[in-house]
Amino acid sequence: MIKTKPLIVKLGGSVITDKRRKFSVRRAALRRLAGELAAAKEPLVIVHGGGSFGHPMASKYGIAGGYGDKRQLIGLSLTHRAMEKLNAHVVEALQRAGLPAMAVQPSACTTVIDGRIKSMELTPARKLLELGIVPVLYGDAVPDLSRGMGILSGDQLVVHLARELGASRIIVCVDVDGVYTANPKVRKSAKLIRTITPTSWPGIAEPISAAGGPDVTGGMANKVRELLALAEHAVEAEIINAAKPNILRRAVLGERGLGTMITMG
Amino acid sequence: MIKTKPLIVKLGGSVITDKRRKFSVRRAALRRLAGELAAAKEPLVIVHGGGSFGHPMASKYGIAGGYGDKRQLIGLSLTHRAMEKLNAHVVEALQRAGLPAMAVQPSACTTVIDGRIKSMELTPARKLLELGIVPVLYGDAVPDLSRGMGILSGDQLVVHLARELGASRIIVCVDVDGVYTANPKVRKSAKLIRTITPTSWPGIAEPISAAGGPDVTGGMANKVRELLALAEHAVEAEIINAAKPNILRRAVLGERGLGTMITMG
Repeated sequence: MIKTKPLIVKLGGSVITDKRRKFSVRRAALRRLAGELAAAKEPLVIVHGGGSFGHPMASKYGIAGGYGDKRQLIGLSLTHRAMEKLNAHVVEALQRAGLPAMAVQPSACTTVIDGRIKSMELTPARKLLELGIVPVLYGDAVPDLSRGMGILSGDQLVVHLARELGASRIIVCVDVDGVYTANPKVRKSAKLIRTITPTSWPGIAEPISAAGGPDVTGGMANKVRELLALAEHAVEAEIINAAKPNILRRAVLGERGLGTMITMG
Repeated sequence: MIKTKPLIVKLGGSVITDKRRKFSVRRAALRRLAGELAAAKEPLVIVHGGGSFGHPMASKYGIAGGYGDKRQLIGLSLTHRAMEKLNAHVVEALQRAGLPAMAVQPSACTTVIDGRIKSMELTPARKLLELGIVPVLYGDAVPDLSRGMGILSGDQLVVHLARELGASRIIVCVDVDGVYTANPKVRKSAKLIRTITPTSWPGIAEPISAAGGPDVTGGMANKVRELLALAEHAVEAEIINAAKPNILRRAVLGERGLGTMITMG
């Protein structure tokens, strides 16, 4: 039994990798973020995105579109391997910060049908949490029972884990201050949205689709949609800018209102 | 549904690593073995041991003895990470030989109680096999529901997978010609045993305990014991010397009698 509810932290691919250059880790940022996470008092579950590791490979072989061509077999193999490489960087950074981190491979324990999680074997992950280990999961290239293969996004994973593990809260780390009315990297007029609720969402959904670079899993609008589904289960979430030092540290220590809160309102 | 029964190949830690030197891969041997495996006509499942990666770390932190001390948390984290490093070498060697290999992390999908597999989520692995992917599993440091943590040996894994996936046959690769009446690396008088059956086993169990170097999972006698359990389920196995070129290739192509056969007799 997990006594204390875990805090789930999503490290966005844009924060820990340079999306403009294939297989490029932001080592200094990762080292800093690992140190900030080590300040946490609650049990942690980490989920990270694919950034410049998973996305280019998944796109090249059309993994997200399902299986249709034999060349996609080596594509699935290479896409998953790319994600493991990034995961190794994350786990080792956490270990160096003193956290007993351990990878939990989503494609090994998740049954996916039509791109959505049907079930997930979480007995091992629960036992790890109970011991005091920090499970580290990631967006992954997965076998899909109906499409053959597909992509399981880190965002979908976060929501599923939050429900199944009974999360206390979710912190989603991106490289902008939160959710904007437009892409803040392109439009000067873009305004930061402080709170999003199931009621306010429809009015702001259209214009937002932030985050630069290719992302096979749908970007910011998709993140908000997944997190809103969770708010309806009374788990609050916040999207913060982890590219700025100490924002993640303050968030894991309990501070609210640092970015965009996703709540029931 | 898997149409053709898979062939399960266990690559022993002594074949793919140098057990005398920590974190030392036998790169040339691994490249050669990947090439020999690529000759297979049947679907493959690969399981590998820990060799000089998993065993020293597991011993250092007493992982096999269960949880009793907080320092074992980083120990579990480091032992699993060591196994992933070796697994990456194996998967990448298979990819370079043209095989669409994909890691399936045992500690993510296996429920272990008192050192034995209680259940294993194999839906993803079955789908991978059906697609034509080569799942690659390994002896792993795992959460254990009763002991806290422990070691799941590659040998135990092989037997469980053979039963659950309905294997056609098992090939176990070691660095000696098979099972001897004594350790052939130490005793000149040691004789190779051509066939072991459940009936002949008790008489030869005592003197054998081959394979040099530290092995937290029990060595040769343990391998035979696990495989005999399987022979009783009518899955034949053979222990061969994969340190010699082309023995594995001949075995995957169907040749028998290259080492020690474990059968019902």
